[in-house]
Amino acid sequence: MRPVSIVGIGQIPVKKVYDKSLRQMAAEVVELALEDAALDRVDALYASNMLADEMQCQKHVAALVADEAGLTGIEALQVRAAMASGAAALRMAYLAVGSGTVELALAVGVEQMSGSYVTPLLAKALDAEVELPHGETLVSQNAHLMQVYFERYAPPPDALAYFPVIAHENARQNPNALFSDRQFTTADVLESRLISAPIRLLDCSPICDGAAAVILAPTEVARRFSARPVHILASAVATDRFRITDRRDPLVLEAVKLSAEAACRQADIKVAQVSLLEFHDAFSIMACLTLEALGYAEPGTGWQLAASGQLGPGGVIPVATMGGLKARGHPIGATGIYQACEAVLQLTGQAGGCQVPSARVAMLQSVGGVATTVITHILAV
Amino acid sequence: MRPVSIVGIGQIPVKKVYDKSLRQMAAEVVELALEDAALDRVDALYASNMLADEMQCQKHVAALVADEAGLTGIEALQVRAAMASGAAALRMAYLAVGSGTVELALAVGVEQMSGSYVTPLLAKALDAEVELPHGETLVSQNAHLMQVYFERYAPPPDALAYFPVIAHENARQNPNALFSDRQFTTADVLESRLISAPIRLLDCSPICDGAAAVILAPTEVARRFSARPVHILASAVATDRFRITDRRDPLVLEAVKLSAEAACRQADIKVAQVSLLEFHDAFSIMACLTLEALGYAEPGTGWQLAASGQLGPGGVIPVATMGGLKARGHPIGATGIYQACEAVLQLTGQAGGCQVPSARVAMLQSVGGVATTVITHILAV
Repeated sequence: MRPVSIVGIGQIPVKKVYDKSLRQMAAEVVELALEDAALDRVDALYASNMLADEMQCQKHVAALVADEAGLTGIEALQVRAAMASGAAALRMAYLAVGSGTVELALAVGVEQMSGSYVTPLLAKALDAEVELPHGETLVSQNAHLMQVYFERYAPPPDALAYFPVIAHENARQNPNALFSDRQFTTADVLESRLISAPIRLLDCSPICDGAAAVILAPTEVARRFSARPVHILASAVATDRFRITDRRDPLVLEAVKLSAEAACRQADIKVAQVSLLEFHDAFSIMACLTLEALGYAEPGTGWQLAASGQLGPGGVIPVATMGGLKARGHPIGATGIYQACEAVLQLTGQAGGCQVPSARVAMLQSVGGVATTVITHILAV
Repeated sequence: MRPVSIVGIGQIPVKKVYDKSLRQMAAEVVELALEDAALDRVDALYASNMLADEMQCQKHVAALVADEAGLTGIEALQVRAAMASGAAALRMAYLAVGSGTVELALAVGVEQMSGSYVTPLLAKALDAEVELPHGETLVSQNAHLMQVYFERYAPPPDALAYFPVIAHENARQNPNALFSDRQFTTADVLESRLISAPIRLLDCSPICDGAAAVILAPTEVARRFSARPVHILASAVATDRFRITDRRDPLVLEAVKLSAEAACRQADIKVAQVSLLEFHDAFSIMACLTLEALGYAEPGTGWQLAASGQLGPGGVIPVATMGGLKARGHPIGATGIYQACEAVLQLTGQAGGCQVPSARVAMLQSVGGVATTVITHILAV
């Protein structure tokens, strides 16, 4: 397949959006991305979203966004993988352009979910026949993993609390972050409200709205649209057993490992060469287990990287550099595209106060369910 | 991009399925397709479905199906375009294999929607902010088009009734059709219950369940898996204005035209070379307008092809050769994949009593909303 690059990005601040509709949010970032690439049209639009079926009574999101953005006529499809939907749309855009079938493709993620009780909707990423009847949710399943982690490895009580502290610190310099005005200590995390033991409020990513878009072009013509195109070196998807109870070891995120290995093979790099990692820190335990699955730490020791300051610039691996899911916010279907926008800013030296010095290679990971679907992209300049 | 072929198919009879769950139906056709290609694994699975969010509380269909089919670990994503979702999944499989990124891909469509009141769910393919508040549904919008058609062209009252008659006749020889035991006259259609004037019961495709799967491989190795691979000559998507009231002429299906033109260019054929057309006859009026948009008939005369026997073997263009959406049934998210399975049977001379003699080229068209998203594939041997 031919090499593919990102030549334009568009994002709006993550927040609770009351004054715009889903389609307006999406059309706005499409316009920003087109402006960024000095384009007025693309050939295809791949949309991502998780909750519009119920939240907006909308099952035809891609065509709706294309129409609202004035792009009538073009190809428009929606791609999904629960919470990993944003990365799924990015992958389809990558395949379409890479195949030579589509010249310019736009991946746009959008979610408007605040102002409603969405936990039962998010739980539809789990097994509705086996798990939902027992009241399982994404929160309860992550709580289960956190419980097992503490039982097996007996780390200090504040072990996982470092992850949200780091994310919130990073978000303070990102103008598009939901929480750009907060600062927490690990004590704050441990004193925050208990949500589903042992998970506390500050272990969880927030319910919020957002939209983001990226434009992909063949690398060979990328400089026509961008002075600083960012190249997509790899795109890989892997799945795990659907229910965590069916897995050999619930604390080993096999799909994180598999998709990252495949992506590193495609990009012909080692994990050690990655300059920054935008991981799926929807819950503190997910952040920790991801570092372990990726090989940055031995099982049971991922939190030590956080506690010892190894996750900031100059450390082993800078993570959630613009706030991550925890503090930039996690507008589900848009999250994977926000990650891509942020990686582009980092790799082109435009990340402002969040800038990771000499960032050359970014790994993005997006997770659907409890690491059931994992999508990894590697970007580089 | 490298050429891609279909090397295996699997389908179950369309009916009201009470004794199997969504995932079981999907896993069954995955297994049938794998058997057909003498494979025990593929590299990626692209799933299509429209209504599981509400019907099965399931938003993570692709990973669920991969798990149930014993394919844990592989890439699994869902692709959507409302009622055109099946064709959307086929397109993603085509792009993935064509790009060289994926070697063997499976497209699987599944829908379990009978036994519930799904009209409001299907209406989520329309504009929820502007159209749904006025009670619009897919039925009412198609009724509107039919009304305008009769007002503008004043055809005889039974003009559109020939379409369901033909579909039901064809379905009688298809063992996988929902209605393989019925036969109707145009008088039956005109006497059937009025649903949404002027649409009558027999103008509408039925509510039913089904699943179908196809396996795609690079053409250069297709004969390893199939003695009679079927080649995908083209895959194209186009959209129209989202609301029919925004269109220049509601009786001109622009996206049907655009996507078919793009597909014919890709395949380097003319519409006249197509041996059979699996079109989206969800309503009689949609069948008629499709023939006109494709250029088989002048505006206002599409029904004459049906009335004069030109839509059967030996006619201008055989349509709905195994019953179409009307009589094979329209299990929404699976329909596009059923069309692909049926085209493979036709092109390889395995269509039994439905066989179109000397079928060489098949055009498949799948429609989301009221021809808002249209996906065209061209298959050939």
